[in-house]
Amino acid sequence: MTTLDVLNAVAAGQLTPQAASTQLEVSQTADLGFANVDLSRQKRNGFPEVIYGAGKTATQIAGIIQAMPTQSTPILTTRLSAEKFAALQPALPQAVYHQTAQCMTVGALPTPKQSDYIAVVTAGTSDLPVAEEAALTAQAFGNHVERVYDVGVAGIHRLFAKLALIRGAKVVIVIAGMEGALASVVGGLIDKPLIAVPTSVGYGTNFQGMTALLTMLNSCASGITVVNIDNGFGAAYSASLINQL
Amino acid sequence: MTTLDVLNAVAAGQLTPQAASTQLEVSQTADLGFANVDLSRQKRNGFPEVIYGAGKTATQIAGIIQAMPTQSTPILTTRLSAEKFAALQPALPQAVYHQTAQCMTVGALPTPKQSDYIAVVTAGTSDLPVAEEAALTAQAFGNHVERVYDVGVAGIHRLFAKLALIRGAKVVIVIAGMEGALASVVGGLIDKPLIAVPTSVGYGTNFQGMTALLTMLNSCASGITVVNIDNGFGAAYSASLINQL
Amino acid sequence: MTTLDVLNAVAAGQLTPQAASTQLEVSQTADLGFANVDLSRQKRNGFPEVIYGAGKTATQIAGIIQAMPTQSTPILTTRLSAEKFAALQPALPQAVYHQTAQCMTVGALPTPKQSDYIAVVTAGTSDLPVAEEAALTAQAFGNHVERVYDVGVAGIHRLFAKLALIRGAKVVIVIAGMEGALASVVGGLIDKPLIAVPTSVGYGTNFQGMTALLTMLNSCASGITVVNIDNGFGAAYSASLINQL
Amino acid sequence: MTTLDVLNAVAAGQLTPQAASTQLEVSQTADLGFANVDLSRQKRNGFPEVIYGAGKTATQIAGIIQAMPTQSTPILTTRLSAEKFAALQPALPQAVYHQTAQCMTVGALPTPKQSDYIAVVTAGTSDLPVAEEAALTAQAFGNHVERVYDVGVAGIHRLFAKLALIRGAKVVIVIAGMEGALASVVGGLIDKPLIAVPTSVGYGTNFQGMTALLTMLNSCASGITVVNIDNGFGAAYSASLINQL
Amino acid sequence: MTTLDVLNAVAAGQLTPQAASTQLEVSQTADLGFANVDLSRQKRNGFPEVIYGAGKTATQIAGIIQAMPTQSTPILTTRLSAEKFAALQPALPQAVYHQTAQCMTVGALPTPKQSDYIAVVTAGTSDLPVAEEAALTAQAFGNHVERVYDVGVAGIHRLFAKLALIRGAKVVIVIAGMEGALASVVGGLIDKPLIAVPTSVGYGTNFQGMTALLTMLNSCASGITVVNIDNGFGAAYSASLINQL
Amino acid sequence: MTTLDVLNAVAAGQLTPQAASTQLEVSQTADLGFANVDLSRQKRNGFPEVIYGAGKTATQIAGIIQAMPTQSTPILTTRLSAEKFAALQPALPQAVYHQTAQCMTVGALPTPKQSDYIAVVTAGTSDLPVAEEAALTAQAFGNHVERVYDVGVAGIHRLFAKLALIRGAKVVIVIAGMEGALASVVGGLIDKPLIAVPTSVGYGTNFQGMTALLTMLNSCASGITVVNIDNGFGAAYSASLINQL
Amino acid sequence: MTTLDVLNAVAAGQLTPQAASTQLEVSQTADLGFANVDLSRQKRNGFPEVIYGAGKTATQIAGIIQAMPTQSTPILTTRLSAEKFAALQPALPQAVYHQTAQCMTVGALPTPKQSDYIAVVTAGTSDLPVAEEAALTAQAFGNHVERVYDVGVAGIHRLFAKLALIRGAKVVIVIAGMEGALASVVGGLIDKPLIAVPTSVGYGTNFQGMTALLTMLNSCASGITVVNIDNGFGAAYSASLINQL
Amino acid sequence: MTTLDVLNAVAAGQLTPQAASTQLEVSQTADLGFANVDLSRQKRNGFPEVIYGAGKTATQIAGIIQAMPTQSTPILTTRLSAEKFAALQPALPQAVYHQTAQCMTVGALPTPKQSDYIAVVTAGTSDLPVAEEAALTAQAFGNHVERVYDVGVAGIHRLFAKLALIRGAKVVIVIAGMEGALASVVGGLIDKPLIAVPTSVGYGTNFQGMTALLTMLNSCASGITVVNIDNGFGAAYSASLINQL
Repeated sequence: MTTLDVLNAVAAGQLTPQAASTQLEVSQTADLGFANVDLSRQKRNGFPEVIYGAGKTATQIAGIIQAMPTQSTPILTTRLSAEKFAALQPALPQAVYHQTAQCMTVGALPTPKQSDYIAVVTAGTSDLPVAEEAALTAQAFGNHVERVYDVGVAGIHRLFAKLALIRGAKVVIVIAGMEGALASVVGGLIDKPLIAVPTSVGYGTNFQGMTALLTMLNSCASGITVVNIDNGFGAAYSASLINQL
Repeated sequence: MTTLDVLNAVAAGQLTPQAASTQLEVSQTADLGFANVDLSRQKRNGFPEVIYGAGKTATQIAGIIQAMPTQSTPILTTRLSAEKFAALQPALPQAVYHQTAQCMTVGALPTPKQSDYIAVVTAGTSDLPVAEEAALTAQAFGNHVERVYDVGVAGIHRLFAKLALIRGAKVVIVIAGMEGALASVVGGLIDKPLIAVPTSVGYGTNFQGMTALLTMLNSCASGITVVNIDNGFGAAYSASLINQL
Repeated sequence: MTTLDVLNAVAAGQLTPQAASTQLEVSQTADLGFANVDLSRQKRNGFPEVIYGAGKTATQIAGIIQAMPTQSTPILTTRLSAEKFAALQPALPQAVYHQTAQCMTVGALPTPKQSDYIAVVTAGTSDLPVAEEAALTAQAFGNHVERVYDVGVAGIHRLFAKLALIRGAKVVIVIAGMEGALASVVGGLIDKPLIAVPTSVGYGTNFQGMTALLTMLNSCASGITVVNIDNGFGAAYSASLINQL
Repeated sequence: MTTLDVLNAVAAGQLTPQAASTQLEVSQTADLGFANVDLSRQKRNGFPEVIYGAGKTATQIAGIIQAMPTQSTPILTTRLSAEKFAALQPALPQAVYHQTAQCMTVGALPTPKQSDYIAVVTAGTSDLPVAEEAALTAQAFGNHVERVYDVGVAGIHRLFAKLALIRGAKVVIVIAGMEGALASVVGGLIDKPLIAVPTSVGYGTNFQGMTALLTMLNSCASGITVVNIDNGFGAAYSASLINQL
Repeated sequence: MTTLDVLNAVAAGQLTPQAASTQLEVSQTADLGFANVDLSRQKRNGFPEVIYGAGKTATQIAGIIQAMPTQSTPILTTRLSAEKFAALQPALPQAVYHQTAQCMTVGALPTPKQSDYIAVVTAGTSDLPVAEEAALTAQAFGNHVERVYDVGVAGIHRLFAKLALIRGAKVVIVIAGMEGALASVVGGLIDKPLIAVPTSVGYGTNFQGMTALLTMLNSCASGITVVNIDNGFGAAYSASLINQL
Repeated sequence: MTTLDVLNAVAAGQLTPQAASTQLEVSQTADLGFANVDLSRQKRNGFPEVIYGAGKTATQIAGIIQAMPTQSTPILTTRLSAEKFAALQPALPQAVYHQTAQCMTVGALPTPKQSDYIAVVTAGTSDLPVAEEAALTAQAFGNHVERVYDVGVAGIHRLFAKLALIRGAKVVIVIAGMEGALASVVGGLIDKPLIAVPTSVGYGTNFQGMTALLTMLNSCASGITVVNIDNGFGAAYSASLINQL
Repeated sequence: MTTLDVLNAVAAGQLTPQAASTQLEVSQTADLGFANVDLSRQKRNGFPEVIYGAGKTATQIAGIIQAMPTQSTPILTTRLSAEKFAALQPALPQAVYHQTAQCMTVGALPTPKQSDYIAVVTAGTSDLPVAEEAALTAQAFGNHVERVYDVGVAGIHRLFAKLALIRGAKVVIVIAGMEGALASVVGGLIDKPLIAVPTSVGYGTNFQGMTALLTMLNSCASGITVVNIDNGFGAAYSASLINQL
Repeated sequence: MTTLDVLNAVAAGQLTPQAASTQLEVSQTADLGFANVDLSRQKRNGFPEVIYGAGKTATQIAGIIQAMPTQSTPILTTRLSAEKFAALQPALPQAVYHQTAQCMTVGALPTPKQSDYIAVVTAGTSDLPVAEEAALTAQAFGNHVERVYDVGVAGIHRLFAKLALIRGAKVVIVIAGMEGALASVVGGLIDKPLIAVPTSVGYGTNFQGMTALLTMLNSCASGITVVNIDNGFGAAYSASLINQL
């Protein structure tokens, strides 16, 4: 339904201005002064708004969560330090903190709706925080997740031992720091979409993940798309959209 | 079937060494000296090998194509200049050249198998070569494609006029140069996976597409993954895998 | 008038859907396939659409100009090489080419409407092409322009000799390559808005204008804003908006 | 009046050397040893000197303020941490600290002189410190300011709901981190000068605001000029010059 | 023995599937959940797995070491802070900490097997931590090491005084920060392989070692290869492989 | 023999000043005005001077070669375009041009002295020019070379099929562009020194080989050292030193 | 004499306004429209204006030279291609072209006034164009110059053989590309000011001279200052000021 | 005296081997294990070794100073934090700490030997630490210094008021952060060598001084050479060599 269609319906009395406005997504926000909470996100984007905790105070986060309506999936806050969670807890006693993922959920994780699964694969042990952010996000959005950790190419037989599990996924998230070569190797071995997440694990010319990012963007293997450094959440968001197609 | 399963089957006489070798994907190549053509790619990766024409001579490209077996989809060569195509044509009289896309196909484009479609959206007129590389690749892989061109955010009503068409796609490719803001805006309006392609259109601090790439990697909208600058082919490859899930 | 106001007016029969659609800026485009010409730009942005010639073929440019309605100011095309203009000329016999500015105008330059003027100041002789792009754009948008060229800080008395003319402007454009210090010096001497344009004049660590850009962004003088490298057009656009306040 | 005019007036006895010297802006400074306070700035640049607190000790800041003459607008200090303010307070009991803006004012904020206003628009909640630095600076310089916060493009209907307010401004400041796309979208919807401020909000390839800066410099929309990352003060300075034309 | 050879041997009953699997290096790992310890590394790569301590918790490191089988050389952990070692010590009472090298060994350093030696040469005193990481790694892998410290080119006679010792080595490691010129000078004076290690010693445009790295990659002298910034371990690993040829 | 030893020998009459000067490597040059040919390089560095053709005129190159004494290995010129070779040929009729390698040799390639060999491995067909520069240099220095081309990780079974040949080498050169992941994969599978050469093959964020370089410097596999982008010569020089230990 | 002193002298009738204006360096320019020739440069800066030919047309250069008054040293134009010189020659028949230096002089080179000399030292043959630009500039400014070419650190004995000549200079210019280590080595051996000039000679990570520049800025030797990449002119300008102290 | 001259003198018995060795600067070091103190630096480089305190422990610094022989100028240590000085003081009771300069001297500052002076000029108050490092170094090396602080171009009349003092210097050091334009402006007004020091004062795109560095390297004024960011010491070293010519 285009804007003109909506307008014609209003003119025809088939739609009230208020309903049309809703359809055009006008004013579906909760204005808190410091924040303008987007209440139509699930309808527009498939999943409800997720709170990025890094740039907000504990008070702001609690305020935003309290302004959000009941929703089918848990309210997810990412990039939340343990300290900030401790400050939040009195205001949100039902909140659960996920230490490695640095995330908080309010509301129970849904039971995955389908047998399709997302494989979350990491190169090393140091990539776990990003992997857990991705896995938890995917679970919060109702997906079944299989974790395949520490199978980097320095010992490539570790990857081959888990290849069947990876190949069985509907979409694969590959998470790697240092030189990020794992994405190319996995990409050359599967026929499903692969979302690569560079991590800031490394030193010197790793440039806080820039090297892994460049590796992934320039992969000689096909079927690979990339998200920002350490963006486990973003990878899981796209993977969830794909897994639930 | 893991490597150990295959080995057990060999030991049990259920599999010949040759068959096992095939299954382990050993030696499925055509070794031309200068090239080692990968003959198991479709089986492993969903689509057959595509030839990247930029770094190869006309003779090498013709040789590789002649070494490739008959396949269900056309043999696609990307990044092929008109000059190189002219040099190739005598050796490959059945080849078809696609000028804007800078691509060559050998074999007829398949009739799209399904009603699902991929939307290819561009910000400006200058993004057309990348968009056509993406669209042609997607068509060569058997997808229906909808083109939505020149709807950049400087005149955002042009985008809203096409929004229903974009929202109807199973996966959306957004192609933009300059500041690349179109990806974020479309990402905020749809609930399907979005693959963003930065283009090298721009000047000065655009840095040959780096600015658009960074924009897309840092989008405030979710559900966006990114490929290399001007990589229309790569975006279409991933989009095809998604569209055919 | 907000979207809701418009919708209420439609519901009340005070506005036809078509008029509302116009007001909401829907569908005011001329869709040429390769381009989607924005016909409401002047209404929205103060000046009509200007054609960026660098990424378009001569045929595309001619097509776009022919699709544009008559307008109060000349149709301006920037970044147009002499070769492309020669190819265009048969289709647009009324077009005028401005060699140094690398611009084309279709339609007479307007007589400046007011005594307020824009000063266009350059550091050196090599900055002239950018300066002329700026000056011509400002003139095409109906402004009076004063050119003050080659007054770089290596011989700062040249600047002081022209200071009264610069101070008399309503808005000042400072154009400089190399180290771009002129922007800071002028900025410290005037009380009007200054728009700085870095140029790609220089070599080595100039990095095609990056050094001048960084200088301008980090100026110790206040009242300076900056546009992209070599973007004379952009500086003139903003200066015109300011000069016509 | 050029230097030669001034000299002729001196020779003609129409001007004392001291007055001429004043006119030529020589020696209007207060030399504190560590600082050389510029006492003619308001006359030259429209607004009095503002103290950049980041690189100075509390003692230096207090000394500079005490050396400044009475002025029509409050003495503004930016980038002042709460700790440094606490150290300053005994020496400047009349000073007021603005926590979110990290600024200090000495002297009452002026009543805005005119109905013209500056709109300060942000993409997200995390951009508030920069926005408040801009808003406070504009108010200190005697402008009326309208704040429009958290209207980023991930939920673009939030922007459209505030569009009339933004369009009513004489000059608009758009503040955004992450990918900074809001500047382009607003720029495509208004006909007033837009000053874009990139913020260092983001992570990974955001590069502490570099991505937003590049986005803004390469905007496909016209009428946008840019200041340094997090430079709310600089944007407000230019906006004030424009708003008071 | 190729994969096909292995498979034929399995089919011929000359090799059990388990033995073949071992030969193909499948499943020789110890899966700890957070880590997948690579137990075939010494067989594949010449030396056993070394633990990179920087991205792991004390508990993870202790767990990995306890999962490793007895081996001929000590278990080496690099990039281990004194704090983390203190936390580890109760679990690994036999561990020895090497302060300057920031390394830990479990098991006695082997007596060097041969008269061939590795020279570890530094430009300055500040390069010692990297040099000691290199020297200790080489010793842990059974090499004799000669240390030649603080012979940078600012006082080049210091280098010439030690030249005979350097020339006597089978392989030379040159470690330098700042501008890293020592690598070129030594490279021009010896006829053995030289491995250059840039260090992050320096300030300003040193960019945390990037300058020294670039110097080493662009050396006008031949026979120089380079490792990552501060990567004493990596240099020693390659040098050990060479020294033991 | 240190400098002091040499001086004592001179004082003792055991060494003439001229001989001592030779030993101290003073004045062993052929000064051509524009060039100062280094005649003691083979004695100092293991192999005679090689001419880098890129920055020299044909006349200069011919002059340098004619000034060089007879030597045991052929005189090698690298980075020599076909055009420059054509200009050189009349002056050097015995010279042989190697097209793919862009190299010229004067004098016959030596028969390899030993069974030890260097493996030159490439990821793709486009890496051939760099690979041939490396292979030819190694051959000119008297090494046996095994070429293993086009075994990139997108079809990793191609690599495994050649693994025994690679593992048999005394030193391995891995040459790759795009994301350069092949170096890490090979590095994880062998126990010999590996020299990685990034190539400038790729586009967009490949940054003319920078991505492959960074990948190789940050490899999670050990035993890898790196040379400058496209520096096949440098890799072969170091490999030759190692192969002839 | 300060501005106030000048003004007092004007008031006292001791100085005419015109003379005062001259003293204050006002209006000593020749305004050609496209250029504003600085006629007081020699008085202010020690040497007359030198024309940077790269960004100017042949017509502009001829015009500027014809506008310049007779001066004691030749008029120097740098960065002048042979093509542009050919176009200039008819207008300036007395001009002399210096091929390697890419410079033109009008007027005879002065006989050096003093025994003090500037040493111009290069690392390699490819650095000659920059070295000759430096040497010619120094000669045009009346200095005696000693050229010491191709003494790079790969064969460091070549440098020691010329050390006495270098040490005898009053100021030394060191010119090097690739890794630029020569500056540090020379800097460690002399007690005179050293001006280092990085050249754009090199490839890959040389980044068109950036590596040599960084090396020189981060030198462990003292007494080194640096100019822009390939800026032989700038080095000679400063060296001339020093040599003539 | 060349190496060959020295050798001939040894052969002729005119020089003992030990004396020759001294002349060739062999073994004039004090080897402390962690440091190899260069005892011939003053003879070679004009001034004795200065200790860079940043990368050394308090114990190492004390050890080095105690190993240095008595010298005519004070022993200078730069980049020494107050904490490290406090740790050093018991071992070096005669040491004096200079707070703003972050330097320590052992031994009295010499009385300047001559009327020639070095001007140290800064743009702002925040540049003082670098300026004091430069001034103190120059004084330690026996120069008379004139400080001209806080005369940045935002209030350029402050500079003109001090111009006579600056012009009177034999060599000028200009220190500036932010955009660093002061160097160009001063460079255009004097006829003496100017050494520019960029400082890390600034934020955002200042990139810790990179912008000021680039400005200075690309100055349109001549006679400017540059040192590393914040390198007050290096500027003073070169300035001292020039001032004492």
